[in-house]
Amino acid sequence: MNDAFIEDTTAIEAAAVSYLTAFNRADAATVISTYADDGVLMAPGRPATVGKSSLAKTYPGIFEKVSFDMKYEIKEVVQTSAAWGFVRSTTEGTQIVKATGEAHSASYQELFLLRKSTDGVWQIARYCTVNVTP
Amino acid sequence: MNDAFIEDTTAIEAAAVSYLTAFNRADAATVISTYADDGVLMAPGRPATVGKSSLAKTYPGIFEKVSFDMKYEIKEVVQTSAAWGFVRSTTEGTQIVKATGEAHSASYQELFLLRKSTDGVWQIARYCTVNVTP
Repeated sequence: MNDAFIEDTTAIEAAAVSYLTAFNRADAATVISTYADDGVLMAPGRPATVGKSSLAKTYPGIFEKVSFDMKYEIKEVVQTSAAWGFVRSTTEGTQIVKATGEAHSASYQELFLLRKSTDGVWQIARYCTVNVTP
Repeated sequence: MNDAFIEDTTAIEAAAVSYLTAFNRADAATVISTYADDGVLMAPGRPATVGKSSLAKTYPGIFEKVSFDMKYEIKEVVQTSAAWGFVRSTTEGTQIVKATGEAHSASYQELFLLRKSTDGVWQIARYCTVNVTP
C-alpha cells in the first residue's frame, strides 16, 4: 500500500487484452497464466471459480464445448492505486457449440480487477463477464 | 492517492449490503443512492448502464417487470487502497415475472467495485452481476 504510484495503465490494459485474445483462440494455458494465484472467474451459468488450480480445470472445459470468434473493445482502463486497477470491455461475435455445430451471435461485457504482483506483473485478481444478449 | 490508508472494510461491506437489501425490496431510490455519479451497472441481458441518470431509468424498469425474494451471502470484502475496495457476494432465491406471475428460482453472483467519496462515503463505482443458474 505504501509503494509509490507509478502510472501503469498501458500494462494494465495489456493484461486484459492478453486474456481476451488468448480466450478467443481457446488458449487455456495463456488464459490461466493471466490470473493471479487467488484469481476468481465469475461467468454466466456457473458458480465462481476460485484459485488457479480450479481455473485450470474450468477453462479447458469451456473450450471443449464452445468455440468463440469475438472482437473486443476496451471501454475504460483505470489504475486505482500503485498495485490495483480495473478494465471494462465488451466482446461481440459468434460462438459455436462444438457438439452440434450450432452457431449464434453473442455479446458480452467484462470487468477485470487487476493486481500488480511483487514481480511487477499485472494479473487478473477478479474477473466478471456477463452476457449482453439474453 | 496520497490519503492515508484507514481500514474501512466494515463500511465497504455495509455499502454493498445496502445495495443488496434495497434491490431485494425494489427500492429504486436507495439502490441508485448507493452508486457514485459515474457508477456503472453490468447485468445480464442488457448493455452497461453508465452514470447515475441512466441508472435512475434502468432500475425502475427492472422493478416494474420482476420482483425478487433473494438472500445474499458476502463472500469477501477487500480494501485495496485508501479510497477503493471490492466486495464479492452471491444471491439466491426466487424471482417472479410480474406480467405472468411466473416464479422461478434464481442464483446470481456479484462483484462490487467501491470508491470512497470526498465526503467519506463508500459508493458503488462499478458493479457486475451474473447468473449462476443458466
